Amino acid sequence: MEIKVLKDILSANDKRAEENRALLNSHNILAVNITASPGAGKTSLILETIRRVKNEIKIGVIEGDVSSSIDAKAVGEEGVPVVQINTGGTCHLDANMISNAVCNLPLQDINLLLVENVGNLICPAGFALGTHRDVLVSSVPEGDDKPYKYPAMFSQSDVVVLNKMDLLPHLDFDRQAFFKAVKGINERAKIFELSCKTAQGIQEWISWLLAQLSTP
Amino acid sequence: MEIKVLKDILSANDKRAEENRALLNSHNILAVNITASPGAGKTSLILETIRRVKNEIKIGVIEGDVSSSIDAKAVGEEGVPVVQINTGGTCHLDANMISNAVCNLPLQDINLLLVENVGNLICPAGFALGTHRDVLVSSVPEGDDKPYKYPAMFSQSDVVVLNKMDLLPHLDFDRQAFFKAVKGINERAKIFELSCKTAQGIQEWISWLLAQLSTP
Repeated sequence: MEIKVLKDILSANDKRAEENRALLNSHNILAVNITASPGAGKTSLILETIRRVKNEIKIGVIEGDVSSSIDAKAVGEEGVPVVQINTGGTCHLDANMISNAVCNLPLQDINLLLVENVGNLICPAGFALGTHRDVLVSSVPEGDDKPYKYPAMFSQSDVVVLNKMDLLPHLDFDRQAFFKAVKGINERAKIFELSCKTAQGIQEWISWLLAQLSTP
Repeated sequence: MEIKVLKDILSANDKRAEENRALLNSHNILAVNITASPGAGKTSLILETIRRVKNEIKIGVIEGDVSSSIDAKAVGEEGVPVVQINTGGTCHLDANMISNAVCNLPLQDINLLLVENVGNLICPAGFALGTHRDVLVSSVPEGDDKPYKYPAMFSQSDVVVLNKMDLLPHLDFDRQAFFKAVKGINERAKIFELSCKTAQGIQEWISWLLAQLSTP
């Protein structure tokens, strides 16, 4: 009985996700779902990306948080259209939330939609949004064993960004162990080692992102 | 209809949590629920605590993870009884899982039970376990705005441990802003600034923890 209810919710979500995808495609928008644990640097990555490409392409942002609009404010100051979703306790974004948010964005003026999911390495894995790429931001201070502990999220990401590389000298983080763990769970995942603070690796990330715009 | 199901689950969980509490009380065990986002340092805090008090008091540990038994292995090497719960995708521990785990621990030989919850700053807030104290581990690299984004977890914690203080010189973290954010949400929360790496603040944390044993 309970399982049946869950199935219904999920298939309704998948249906809505497909509708979102169709709407985005009709506007030629590439949408990227960015997930991470709290404080890994999703917002920093989005801000750094906006600063580097906003003169080349038109960006829109959806910010997801349980509470507050701190991140949307920071994004708005960069001069790009942004919608904040406050989930009010819910631990993930879902396709319905995206559908509502998208209606509040000027879609004709957007080529790239960055969606910042709720900070959570577990629950977002179960809810398709209709986005075209999944990017997981992990960070050096979290430790090199995270792929083993949160396999669902790592297994379904197209890209893993390893952020805060500038802190590597101050931490016991085994890069090879992290690479091995990611690849063991998800062979196809591309990994970018990056620091939003020093700009290490940012250019490689931007190049990948821009290349996706021509290969949806 | 759905709300009713949710209510039933929650009240069943609360009932089981009360049973857990009664069982722990009958054995004179103080149980501490330790929550955090992934990689904030829950396991490091538990290991450091064990090393410092295992000659004084008898400790048992329950390790909660979506997947893997990495943490239970590390704790077991310290020579204390430990049970690993793998939730298999579920984003929080619940009272039923604790009930099963407790049956596999030598309760007569334990004074202090440390429960490491799943790494998640949202979902564990909704599920009582039957423990006596809630300790939230936050860490400097996560940033000083986390209380605003995850208010439920911060509001119901007795203690907030701010870990990885050794990284403070390398990050833009405003201690006063963090204190203000915590106190704004939860005036009664005790805050310990601590580093498991340099041992800064560990003694204050241990003193608090030992004092709880005599005031359940």
